[in-house]
Amino acid sequence: MTRFHHKVHAEKQSREMFTEAAIEAAGSVDNGFDLRDADALYLGYFSSDNFEKQAHTSALMADWIGVNPIPTARIEAACASSGVAMNTGIMAIASGLYDIVIVGGVEKMRTLGTGDVTNTLAMAADASYEVAMGFTFPGLYAAMTAAHFHKYGSKWEQLTDIAIKNHENGKLNPKAQYQETIMDIALKLGARKGLTFGDEMDFLRSDLNAMVAEPLRLFDCCPISDGAATVILASEEVARKYTDTPVWIAGMGQASDTMALHDRDDLTSLKATKLASRQAYDMAGINAGDISFACVHDCFTSAEMMATEDLGFFKLGEGGKAASEGRTALDGDMPINTDGGLKAKGHPVGATGVAMVVEVFKQLRGEAGAHQLSDPRYGLAHNVGAAGATVSVQVYGR
Amino acid sequence: MTRFHHKVHAEKQSREMFTEAAIEAAGSVDNGFDLRDADALYLGYFSSDNFEKQAHTSALMADWIGVNPIPTARIEAACASSGVAMNTGIMAIASGLYDIVIVGGVEKMRTLGTGDVTNTLAMAADASYEVAMGFTFPGLYAAMTAAHFHKYGSKWEQLTDIAIKNHENGKLNPKAQYQETIMDIALKLGARKGLTFGDEMDFLRSDLNAMVAEPLRLFDCCPISDGAATVILASEEVARKYTDTPVWIAGMGQASDTMALHDRDDLTSLKATKLASRQAYDMAGINAGDISFACVHDCFTSAEMMATEDLGFFKLGEGGKAASEGRTALDGDMPINTDGGLKAKGHPVGATGVAMVVEVFKQLRGEAGAHQLSDPRYGLAHNVGAAGATVSVQVYGR
Repeated sequence: MTRFHHKVHAEKQSREMFTEAAIEAAGSVDNGFDLRDADALYLGYFSSDNFEKQAHTSALMADWIGVNPIPTARIEAACASSGVAMNTGIMAIASGLYDIVIVGGVEKMRTLGTGDVTNTLAMAADASYEVAMGFTFPGLYAAMTAAHFHKYGSKWEQLTDIAIKNHENGKLNPKAQYQETIMDIALKLGARKGLTFGDEMDFLRSDLNAMVAEPLRLFDCCPISDGAATVILASEEVARKYTDTPVWIAGMGQASDTMALHDRDDLTSLKATKLASRQAYDMAGINAGDISFACVHDCFTSAEMMATEDLGFFKLGEGGKAASEGRTALDGDMPINTDGGLKAKGHPVGATGVAMVVEVFKQLRGEAGAHQLSDPRYGLAHNVGAAGATVSVQVYGR
Repeated sequence: MTRFHHKVHAEKQSREMFTEAAIEAAGSVDNGFDLRDADALYLGYFSSDNFEKQAHTSALMADWIGVNPIPTARIEAACASSGVAMNTGIMAIASGLYDIVIVGGVEKMRTLGTGDVTNTLAMAADASYEVAMGFTFPGLYAAMTAAHFHKYGSKWEQLTDIAIKNHENGKLNPKAQYQETIMDIALKLGARKGLTFGDEMDFLRSDLNAMVAEPLRLFDCCPISDGAATVILASEEVARKYTDTPVWIAGMGQASDTMALHDRDDLTSLKATKLASRQAYDMAGINAGDISFACVHDCFTSAEMMATEDLGFFKLGEGGKAASEGRTALDGDMPINTDGGLKAKGHPVGATGVAMVVEVFKQLRGEAGAHQLSDPRYGLAHNVGAAGATVSVQVYGR
């Protein structure tokens, strides 16, 4: 994957970022790999239309990485675009039609200002019944967060522990947008404004951590990012030709839910996460307790809290407490977002699902560098579209 | 499928058109079908972003037809979006993960004026190297048409025979946008302008058939349309539960080509059509000569001419001559676009690939009404994205 950061890619289009990621993916195959040996390409890209005035991006990317005439498709499922592209790639191989599939994701977001990006992202909600009424995604997730606080007594302070932890992990990840702890940022911003902060909470309670949509503040929200990620899938027999230590796809799942939040029975949980993860566990023949670590969709800190509950790692209502107890840290019993998550690694929407797979792959191969876990057995990737109208999950093993 | 026509659907959003099509599809299953029995949904929609400021449309459609929580994905591959969605649905069943899959396509285009629609469609070409230089799709296809005229001596008069034939077929199709022959239109427009036309060519040579991009005139171009189409795929065993006369998917193929026209070796032929059709023929164990009829992608009359050559129905350079000889008419030896084609049936971009399948299905079941062929054996659907950077083909049999 490329580094996730809009400033690093300011002069690049999505085609250039994707090509970088694809070349790195091919180069990382143990016994070497020529991208032209792939049989198909699936690409996640959320809104190439708005961001680059460009559609048909899977064909464009195939052209740029030189793999014509293989079949291609762009998969769009909001922020789960490349998680769903992964599932599509897995199906493509399972069908027997293809042996090797390239799955990628990309998003070039910083062609637009923050307001226009927010409006573009809002297209993933119901344009007629949510967006037209004034909702954007911080508002939708704020409503879910407030409901969770109300139902379970979870607190904003627990969410700050998630942000602090993800920035600590991001600091260890050379591909992350923010390779700084929140205290690093507090000191930097404080110096600029002539302010001093005693600790993270002192900073996070200050006006510099602006309220975005109550109770979510700026540091509860993932940033706007540019970037691309690519993985190469192969059938069991073919994978053996390329490496002695493949990472195995043990299970996958996917589910949908109502588009609009107001049609849900419960705002404190994503039904699609529960269903998709149970499908993946069943296919893998394991339980949530067998998962060693997970990359979950923390577009907001509260989304990580809810995900860790819905995936079955913690009881409903106890995700915030678990984070505050350090259980989701690198040295906890259930490390979450070891790469910094969307919060610190960044969230170029269409690339996020595959970037999670890159992290899981590296962890399972012992190649995660400074944020490497000790001997993980199963890793999970959890990608959410919009407020949970689409969720994809995969479980990977060694 | 819904009727294809923007005026008929002026008050409807894509979700309402898609729901209409899905309900009709379920209602047409011989032994009855509940949409909630489906295992997954794949949707072709080219630019929901531009046309409706709405993304994540597969989840939205699943919600509207009441099939949550099944997995969904929107497939975007320019004008081949739902042809590629078909191939994805076929793969999904072949993978063994799903038994029943809904594949749909929809496009709500007439939220924008003609200029903005043209610019939105142009996003399917290379935004940086084609569109920025002034190309839109009539221009790209005009370049290909001119090259074909130059290389093979084909003529615009042959293209008019394709338009006349497709309007004759459209007149027999109650779902078509134009249920009028070109002579019907000539008389209507002539009366409005105080002009009389002796025959079609008299009209087609007049100023009322305006030059769009030389040599393509207005009646060489498909119209802008709103509409939706849906089909239901099932595994072999499951299909038997629902009908005694299923239509079988005998073969499928898909290929890509360079995004930009200037990177091609040849402008007179789509390499991706040749490759995708050969894959489909091989999978079906047949040759082009075994195909009884075909729905081909006639976004422009010249595109039909080239498609009938690239699919192997006629020799390269002889597609125009074959059309002029009546060989592609309903009573010809290779009927093409029996439903009126994109030219007369209309072209709501994302719906087109599945609408072709609807026509093939009806023909093979003997349910095509006034445009029914006599005892067809194999039908082909050929869907092109942009200027051929994506092509999907399926072969269906009884």
